[in-house]
Formats: sequence, structure tokens, C-alpha cells
Amino acid sequence: MLKVDLNADMGESFGAYQIGSDQALAQYISSANVACGFHAADPNVMAKTVDLLVKEEVAIGAHPGLNDLMGFGRRPMSITPTEAKNDVLYQLGALSAFAKAKGKTLHHVKPHGALYNMAAQDAELAMAIAEAVASFDANLVFLGLSGSEMLKAAKACGLKVASEVFADRAYTDEGLLVNRKLPGAMIEDPDDAINRVIQMIKEGTVTSINGNVIPIEADSICIHGDGPNAVTFAKQIHQRLIAEGIQIVSLQNLI
Amino acid sequence: MLKVDLNADMGESFGAYQIGSDQALAQYISSANVACGFHAADPNVMAKTVDLLVKEEVAIGAHPGLNDLMGFGRRPMSITPTEAKNDVLYQLGALSAFAKAKGKTLHHVKPHGALYNMAAQDAELAMAIAEAVASFDANLVFLGLSGSEMLKAAKACGLKVASEVFADRAYTDEGLLVNRKLPGAMIEDPDDAINRVIQMIKEGTVTSINGNVIPIEADSICIHGDGPNAVTFAKQIHQRLIAEGIQIVSLQNLI
Amino acid sequence: MLKVDLNADMGESFGAYQIGSDQALAQYISSANVACGFHAADPNVMAKTVDLLVKEEVAIGAHPGLNDLMGFGRRPMSITPTEAKNDVLYQLGALSAFAKAKGKTLHHVKPHGALYNMAAQDAELAMAIAEAVASFDANLVFLGLSGSEMLKAAKACGLKVASEVFADRAYTDEGLLVNRKLPGAMIEDPDDAINRVIQMIKEGTVTSINGNVIPIEADSICIHGDGPNAVTFAKQIHQRLIAEGIQIVSLQNLI
Amino acid sequence: MLKVDLNADMGESFGAYQIGSDQALAQYISSANVACGFHAADPNVMAKTVDLLVKEEVAIGAHPGLNDLMGFGRRPMSITPTEAKNDVLYQLGALSAFAKAKGKTLHHVKPHGALYNMAAQDAELAMAIAEAVASFDANLVFLGLSGSEMLKAAKACGLKVASEVFADRAYTDEGLLVNRKLPGAMIEDPDDAINRVIQMIKEGTVTSINGNVIPIEADSICIHGDGPNAVTFAKQIHQRLIAEGIQIVSLQNLI
Repeated sequence: MLKVDLNADMGESFGAYQIGSDQALAQYISSANVACGFHAADPNVMAKTVDLLVKEEVAIGAHPGLNDLMGFGRRPMSITPTEAKNDVLYQLGALSAFAKAKGKTLHHVKPHGALYNMAAQDAELAMAIAEAVASFDANLVFLGLSGSEMLKAAKACGLKVASEVFADRAYTDEGLLVNRKLPGAMIEDPDDAINRVIQMIKEGTVTSINGNVIPIEADSICIHGDGPNAVTFAKQIHQRLIAEGIQIVSLQNLI
Repeated sequence: MLKVDLNADMGESFGAYQIGSDQALAQYISSANVACGFHAADPNVMAKTVDLLVKEEVAIGAHPGLNDLMGFGRRPMSITPTEAKNDVLYQLGALSAFAKAKGKTLHHVKPHGALYNMAAQDAELAMAIAEAVASFDANLVFLGLSGSEMLKAAKACGLKVASEVFADRAYTDEGLLVNRKLPGAMIEDPDDAINRVIQMIKEGTVTSINGNVIPIEADSICIHGDGPNAVTFAKQIHQRLIAEGIQIVSLQNLI
Repeated sequence: MLKVDLNADMGESFGAYQIGSDQALAQYISSANVACGFHAADPNVMAKTVDLLVKEEVAIGAHPGLNDLMGFGRRPMSITPTEAKNDVLYQLGALSAFAKAKGKTLHHVKPHGALYNMAAQDAELAMAIAEAVASFDANLVFLGLSGSEMLKAAKACGLKVASEVFADRAYTDEGLLVNRKLPGAMIEDPDDAINRVIQMIKEGTVTSINGNVIPIEADSICIHGDGPNAVTFAKQIHQRLIAEGIQIVSLQNLI
Repeated sequence: MLKVDLNADMGESFGAYQIGSDQALAQYISSANVACGFHAADPNVMAKTVDLLVKEEVAIGAHPGLNDLMGFGRRPMSITPTEAKNDVLYQLGALSAFAKAKGKTLHHVKPHGALYNMAAQDAELAMAIAEAVASFDANLVFLGLSGSEMLKAAKACGLKVASEVFADRAYTDEGLLVNRKLPGAMIEDPDDAINRVIQMIKEGTVTSINGNVIPIEADSICIHGDGPNAVTFAKQIHQRLIAEGIQIVSLQNLI
């Protein structure tokens, strides 16, 4: 039977500030990437998010980011590999404490925002992050961009890896994401987006922005939690996957 | 054979800011209370501190504080028991990751500064902190002020507890610390301070500020890491304890 | 002609986090209390807020708070008068720069949250804040709770002061706010709330929770910017004041 | 008579963390670049630093940096020109409040660390910073690297500019600083360093790392406040300048 994971970022509120639709989204996904207090979240938000995920039986993953709350971890910063390693270790530990207090463990790790984008291309940074993860818990799945330096580094460290794909993004002939600033980069129509995902899972291919059918690995589909239609889209893709006979499972059951 | 633990706060530097004499102090103590990034420290400081403690074979404990770097965690803040619980869980997890990455575990927990003082007197706050510790790791020793609400709460949660005493502080007839603002509150002479410690360990008593001999429990002696003579005093007390035939052991070997 | 000021807190978003309905609210008020980056806001939010207020011709005031973004400045903290003075000076300066860059000046100051509540009762803290304001700009109006230590201190420093009242809160016989936790503390019905405000302005009295008519000074009415009905209520009170022939003017035109 | 300004960074302590030798250094310099709470300093440190500078009659300048206390503002971050503008405005305002409270005004602005280095090369970022300064106070002197984009932008905004030189750094044939990682980049010998400064001021030239005599503009000499010999070096250069008949004056008296 075909299987896929649905992942979404969660727990990105902070203090009095609410963001996202965690409660509604949790019922449609199998894996949550939980903010760890650097780019978003605070200890109270993390406790509530872990409680929600335990209740909804969603796999808990860490979503470590750059230490830039004001920029939501989206502004590239020049950090050394050692700084990246320590920042990731710190955040993994912090989140794991909330899971541990509920008798649970973390399932996966997915870097956030600028850290994700930087580590996708920078082999040294990617290796520092992968080493942090492996030294913390060698059973964690490293979830990252298909074909990126992150996944190469994670494999080299002996970690299980999972490739994520984006329903709403166009791909180049090389299987990379088309820059958001270019025309056609975003798949606007929800039905188109879902059909593309079904093709990725069933055929292992995607039709590139140039019209070529290219191979792609789709272990997990990233659902954006923000935007006005996030929950509706999550529900639609969830229902369509089931209708297509594709099982939605978390990464530890997939890899 | 008589035994005692020597504890000191460590790893309180931050970014470009250096504080304390961790390297020199580490050789004289058996337990270190390591800052976790709230009142002091950052991930890089924590990694270096854990490395030092592993090398020097000093037991690693968590030193969670209030989230107030500017006030070094010394300014009382009104936080709810739930906030206290989550703040402590977060910090325990964060520090434990650095220990785990080195194949080590945490040995004890000692709240810092205003959190320590508040939890010494506030039973509800103390219980929230003790619950956080117990839910994270029931084997941790809770190190706190002799006779405080903290130790009561920790015992009620099934944790091992250790009472700490201060070499350089006068005690009331009730076994509490004399307010620093009162005359005679500080024991200025190092020899006096050390003699008092020896009495605490050998006799289980201390001479109060009123001249009465009262019982006191001394599992661990707190060595202040700041001040110009901190390292010298640590060395003196270390040598005297050995000369008196008192073994210096970490809390897990004591309790 | 009767006159009153309508004030509301504004500019409390932070980074990716949106809070409040500043755009909609701005058209109904005469004075805005603008967050200065401690309890809320960042430089980008402050720049946008000042732009909005200049465009909508709303008087710009500073809303300094405690340095506790996670607690939104609502958690009491033990700070010294010197710390309070410096915290307020820093925030006044920071906000004034955005006004200055648009050729404007600040009109008033109103402390936020826990700082407001603490300074309402603590004469020494109130004096430190008033001194900060007076040393920065002796023409600023100090807006605070009617009858509080804040206003006494501000007067003693030679500042103009304005008393604010709350449309949705019950008052004691002494003219103080009834504790929110007590029954009847909140005026739930919008029409009741507005009628009370009209009485305060026209008669200079309010009916206390015990049914007694007591004197009250109402220079400015505080409109809460959060809550689902904030904008609707602001519009209603704005329209009713005009219908009653009461002019809505900012504090510098009132005091 | 020949004149030159001596500038040093000051007020970079934070909370319990002390850094630098401000008290000792203040007597030898004419201009201080004061940290504004982003890369270093807090309101209490700023108040004390301004008090010291007023007492020692040193000109007060703003030293705005990136909002990265952990990295001391030394880690390049990707910020937009609008973010840079607002960050600088915020910091200028915050520091100016402490000067204003003492009846003083700011004299100059010099960006810090990574912001300085980024703006030296990035014309758009430089223009955003210069616009912030000009919109805040058109009388401020913009102090920056000789020949940099910063000074070009500041001139284009109508600001007075001052070129700073470094006593302890080698220069390329183009008048740029030799990368610190290259051999010979640092002038190790204090006498050499001072002789080079005298040449810069008297001859308007410097001998490049290749041995060529090239023109250089030296309005201000940057004295590093950290390092074990900072104060000694400041004293030596101060005395030598006086011995050479060169007057040490602040930037507003120079430009």
C-alpha cells in the first residue's frame, strides 16, 4: 500500500501573540514540526503544542531555527558550524523535555526558515546540524528538502532521512524549487496542487515548470499552516489521499 | 567516612561576555550548577561548560533561572506555577542535550537567583518546579536551601533532595539565612567560614548569629564563583576538607 | 464646549506577529499609546504605527512597559526606581525618533500593563518614571489612572497630567477600579458603558458599584484595542460623544 | 594647527556583564561611540556611560548595531534597507534620550560591527542608514571607514562626514584595510602604530602593505577599547599627539 507523511509547522505562537490554526490543522497531518523558542514559541506554547499533538496522535518533531524572533528565523545570518550545532542541540533538548514529561519522544527534525535554506546548500552547515541531531538521538528522522545537502549530511551521519515535497510549488528540471519570485513558481489552484501530489506519490514523478516529467522522492508533503485557506487545503489533501488509497503515516512508520 | 558535596554555579558567560573562573574552579568542586540560557549562558557557552565538566569529572546539574538576562535572573518576577514549570522543563531539556551529546546525564537541579528565593518560600511555585523536575527525570537530585519549601515539594514528588549550606553566611536560631542587609550576615574571614563548615559536617550544627548551637543539614556546600577570591577560597576549603578526612563526592554518590 | 480625549493602545504587533486593529481604530480616537519595543513592538512596527497616526492625525504618545515581551509587560517585576527611570527614558527616546523623522513630536506618555499598575501604587517608582518624562520633555502630558501615585508624581515634577477613566469598569466608592476578579467589576453592556462615560464627562461623577454617586475626573477615556468588538465599541462611543455635543480632542488641546 | 579626533567604542557592558575600561579610556579620547542596546548595552549601562562622558567632556556619539546581543553584532545578517533604517532610528532615539536628560545632544553616529562592514560595501544599506541619521538630526557627523559606501551615502544625504583610520591595521594600495586573516594585516608594535598615525595626520599618507605611499584621509583615529593594552595604547597615542603639536578635538569641532 502506498504511504506518505503529511507535515506542518506548529506551535509558532509567542506569549500574547497567536499564529496559525494548530488545533484545526492537527487532525489532518501525521507529523508536526514544533518551534523550539528561537525563531518562535516559548515554553508555555511548547507545552500546549505537545499536549495537543499527544492528544491528536500526531508525531512530534523539532523545528529548530535561527535565534531571531523578530525576523521569525527567516533572515539569513552568518553563523559558524559550531554555533549551528549548539543552537540545534539546545532546541532539540528543550523540545524533547516537553515530550519526555508526557512519556513521549521526538520522531523527527526539520530545520526552519533561513536555517533550512542555508543548510540545503551549505555542506558544512548541514553536517554540523546533522551531527547535532545524531549526537542527541540517532533514531530521529531528518526531514528535509529532496536532494539537498541536509539530507546528504544526515545520511553520512547514519540518520534516517525523509524527503519533503511542496504541493504548491513548481519544480525545475533538476528537481529543485523554482524561485518564488519567478512567474509560475506557485501552484495557485488547489486541485492542481493536489493532483501534482498524487502524481508524485503514485508515479514518483513531477512535471517540471518546463513541462518535463522528472523523478522526485516524496516521503512527506509539507502543508503550510499559515494563509487563510491552510486548514481547508489540509482537509482537501487529506481526504483525497485517503480516496486514492494512500495511507497517511508518520515518518517513523514510513522510513 | 564523612562525605560532602561542593557545588558552584558555572557557565554564566554569554556571547562576548565572560564571567566567572570556571576552568580554575572546576578542579575543586564535585557538582556544577550550569546556567541554561535564561538568566545567563547561550548554547555555545553551555557546550563549552559541559565539555569542561566532563573533562574535570564534575557532576553536571541544571541551574534554571528566570527569563531575564538583563537582570541575571535576580529580579523577582510574578510568574504562574505553570509558567515556572514550563520554564524549568525547557531549561532542563536544553542543558541535558549537551550532556547527552557527550554520553552523560544530568545529576541534579538547583534553581537560580530570584527563582530559588521565590521557590524557597512559595509552596505552590516550589511544587510546580519539583513536578517539572520529576516529570523530566525522577533520578535527579533536587539541591536547595535547607528547610525550604523547595525541598519539601521535591520530597513530595518522590525526588532525592540535598540541603545546601553557605560557608560565608550567618544563620538565625531557626536555621535560616540572616538577611544580607543586617550586620554580621556575612562571614568575612575565610578561616572562620571554613571552621563553620567543618562544624556543620562533623557536628551537624552551626552557631547562630545569637551564639546558639543549632542543628543543620549540610549535604552540599555552596561555593560562590564570583568575587576576587572565589578560586582561592574554593582551594582552601577543598584542602581543609581533605585534611579533615572528609570525602568530597557529588550528590548522586551522597544521597 | 465639553471636551474629552479618546485613547487606545497601538502598535503592539511584533515581527511576524499581528495584534490589534490599529488601522480601523485610528479613525475613532484622538490619542494613541504606542508600544516602544519592550513589552511589544519592534522598530518596523513603530515606524508603521507612527506613519499611520500621522496620516490619521492622531496624537502620538509613548507607552513604555517592562522589558518582558514574553509576558507582554503584564507580569509584575521587581525593578529599582533607577531601572524604571532608565527603561522609560530609553523607550521615550526610541519612539520619539520615529516621530522626529516625520517632523512630529510626542504628545503624551502612559505607562503600560504591570508598570502602570505598579506605578499607580508605588510612589517611589511613580516618581522615577515622572522624572524620566520631565527630564526628556517637560511638555509631555502624563496620562494615568485618576487619583494614582503616578499623577501625583507627575504633578510634583511640573508635568501636565490627564486622568483616564474606563468605560467598561466599575468603580469603588473611593473612585478606584473594582478588582476584575470581583462580580460586577466589568460593565458588560456597551450602552451602559457609554452612558456611564457621558455621565462622567457631563456630570463629573460616576455611580459606584455600591450605587453611590461619586466625583470622578475624566480627561481621557481608555478604549481597549483588543477583543472582538473593540472597533465597533470605539465607533459607537465616538458617535455618541459627537451626538452629545462633546468634542473629541487630544490631550495637548485639552489640558 | 593640526587637529584629529580620537574615537573609541564605549558602554558595551550588559546587565551583570562588564566589558571594556570605559572609565580609564575616557580621559584620552575626544569621541565615544556608545552602544544603544542592540548589539550591547542596556538602559542602565547607557545612563552610566552618558554620565561618565558628560563628566569627562567626551563627545557622545551613537554606535547602532545589529539586534544580535549573543553575537555582539558581529555576525552579518540579511536585513532589508527598511529594517536597517528603522533599527538605526530606534537606537539613535534611545541613546539621545539619555543625552537629552543631561541637557546634551549627540555629536556623531558610527555603525557597529557587522552593520559597519556591510554598510561599508552595500550602497543601498548605507543609504538607508544615512537617511535614518539625516531624518533624525541633520547636524550629526557620520563617522565611517574612509572611502566607504557609508560616507558616500552620508554626503549624498547632506550630512557632515568624518573618515576614520586604524592605528593597528595595514592598508592596501587602494587605501582599504588588509584582511585580518592575511599576514602583516595587524601592526603589532605600538610605536610603529603611533608613527603611522602621525604620518597619516601630518602627511595625509600611509605606507601600504606593499611599501607604497598612498594618500589617506584621517579625521579620526579609532582606538580599540578591548584587549589588555587598550588603555596604555590610548594614553601613549594621546601623549604623542600632544607632543607632536596635534590638537585632539571632537568631530563637531573638526569638520
